[in-house]
Amino acid sequence: MSPPGGSVEAAPGLERFSLNQATTKSWTLREAVEGCARAGVPAIGLWRDRVQEVGAEAAAKVVADAGLRVSSLCRGGFLTGTGDERRAALADNRRALDEAATVGAPCLVLVVGGLPAGSRDLAGARERVASAVHELAEHAAQVGVRLALEPLHPMYCADRAVLSTLGQALDLAEQLPQEQVGVVVDTFHVWWDPDVEAQVARAGARIASFQVCDFLTPLPADVLMGRGVMGDGHIDFPPLRRAVAAAGYQGDVEVEIFNTDVWAADPDEVLALVARRYLEVVLAD
Amino acid sequence: MSPPGGSVEAAPGLERFSLNQATTKSWTLREAVEGCARAGVPAIGLWRDRVQEVGAEAAAKVVADAGLRVSSLCRGGFLTGTGDERRAALADNRRALDEAATVGAPCLVLVVGGLPAGSRDLAGARERVASAVHELAEHAAQVGVRLALEPLHPMYCADRAVLSTLGQALDLAEQLPQEQVGVVVDTFHVWWDPDVEAQVARAGARIASFQVCDFLTPLPADVLMGRGVMGDGHIDFPPLRRAVAAAGYQGDVEVEIFNTDVWAADPDEVLALVARRYLEVVLAD
Repeated sequence: MSPPGGSVEAAPGLERFSLNQATTKSWTLREAVEGCARAGVPAIGLWRDRVQEVGAEAAAKVVADAGLRVSSLCRGGFLTGTGDERRAALADNRRALDEAATVGAPCLVLVVGGLPAGSRDLAGARERVASAVHELAEHAAQVGVRLALEPLHPMYCADRAVLSTLGQALDLAEQLPQEQVGVVVDTFHVWWDPDVEAQVARAGARIASFQVCDFLTPLPADVLMGRGVMGDGHIDFPPLRRAVAAAGYQGDVEVEIFNTDVWAADPDEVLALVARRYLEVVLAD
Repeated sequence: MSPPGGSVEAAPGLERFSLNQATTKSWTLREAVEGCARAGVPAIGLWRDRVQEVGAEAAAKVVADAGLRVSSLCRGGFLTGTGDERRAALADNRRALDEAATVGAPCLVLVVGGLPAGSRDLAGARERVASAVHELAEHAAQVGVRLALEPLHPMYCADRAVLSTLGQALDLAEQLPQEQVGVVVDTFHVWWDPDVEAQVARAGARIASFQVCDFLTPLPADVLMGRGVMGDGHIDFPPLRRAVAAAGYQGDVEVEIFNTDVWAADPDEVLALVARRYLEVVLAD
C-alpha cells in the first residue's frame, strides 16, 4: 500500500520516513506535527494519549492542516485478561479503532498484553488474545482500520506481550482477512530471530507497519528503555529493510524509540538525528 | 540415558535432582559436594573455575569419594570470534572437553558467544559457531563427552549467545552424530517460545541436559541475574517437565540460578529451598 499523500514536501530521502510520537515524548500532538513539518518529515505515528488531549477530530485537523499523513495509531491491545477486564479491554480497543479511523490512521498497533497478575497460563493468555482479535476484526472492518499485531521481544513475554515472534503473529493474522489484520515488523523486537527473513517474506501484504530502532547493550534497568537510535546498537538494518521491501511493503517507516536519554534531549535535535541516521544507517546499501 | 549411579542416597523425590554449582556460587567444589551429600542430592553440575581451583583429577576424586555423579560441566563456547581469538577458543574448548572427561561429566555445556565487539554480522557469527562445533565434534567423540548446545534467551543474542531458540540449536546439532552433539533445554531460556513443545519433542535423544530456573520480572539491572527460584516467577514448569520426559530424557534435572539475592544467602539454605521447590513446583502434577 502506498502512503496516502500529504502535502508536506518531504526532505530528500525522507519520503517514507515517519516520526512515531513516542520518540519525542515531551511534544504534544501539535508540537510534534509542527516539528515534522519544519523538518520535512511527511508522516507521523500518533499515540492515543496525545490524541485524546485534543480529541480525535481536532487531532485529525491539526495533522491535515499541516499536510502530514498518519502512519499508525499506537496503541490498542492488552487483551489477555478475563471477565470484566476483558470486556473493558474489548470496548477500549473498539474506541481506539474509532479514533484511528477519525485521525486517518491505516492501522491500530496492538501490544497484546502479558500474563495476568499471578497467572502462569501462557497458552491460555495466547488463546484469549486470538479470540479477542477475532472479535475485534469485525469492528476493524466496519471502520476501515487494520489491526496490526506487534510481536514483542521475548523478554516482554511475561509482562507486556505474549506474542513473541513474527511467525506466531502471522499464525494468528492469517486466520482473518488481510485487510482486517496485519502485523508490525519492528527491528528491535525481531532482529535476533533466526527465522526473521523467512517470516518477513511470508508476511508479504500482511505487513501493516515497519518500525525501526536499535537494540542496545547493556540493557538499562528498565528494559523498556533499551531502544536506541539506529546505528547506536547491534542491529544490521539494511538486510531487514530489503527483506521488508522484497515482501512488497511500500508504506511508511516509523522511528519509534523509548529511551530516557532520547526523551531528555531537545525534540527538534532528536528528530534531526533520527532522520539523519535513517538516511545513513537504515537506507545504507 | 539413565544417570550413572553414585552412592549418595538421594532424598525422596530427589533421585534425578542436580545442583548446578552456579546456584551456590560462594561454595568451592568441595563445599558444594559436601553440601549435596548432606542434603541427599545425588548429582552436581560443575563449573570449570571451581574445578580448576583443585585440578580436574582431584575434582573427580572429591566427587567420587562423596558418592555423587556429575551431570554436566559448565561451560565451553564463546566461538564467534575470528583469527587468533577463534583459535584460542577452539583450544580452550578442547581443554574443557578433556576436563569434562576427567571429572566424568557426560556433556560440556556451550554458551556459544554473542556478536564480536563492533560487529553487526549476526549471520556470520552464527556461521562461525556452526563451523566451530563441527570442528570440536571430533574431539568430543574422542574423549566421549557430548557438546551440549545451549540456546539462550533472545535478550542475550547480542552479547552472549547467538543461538536463540531450541529449533535453531537442533538445526545445528542434527548435522552431527547424536552422541557428539546435543542440546540443553533450560526453562528460563525457552519458556516463552510458542514452538517450544514441538521442538522439545523433535529434540528427543538430543536432549543432553535439562535445567530449571524461573523467569522474574521486573528484570534486574544486570539481566544475567534475572533467574529466579522455581515458583518465584512466571514459568509453568510441569508442562515443560512432561514434554522433556515424553521426549525420552531420563537424565538429571539441574537447578541453575544466577541471582545476587540467592548468592548472598546461606548456601545450605539455598540448596534446601531449591530442592523443596523442585519437589513442589517442578514435579507438581
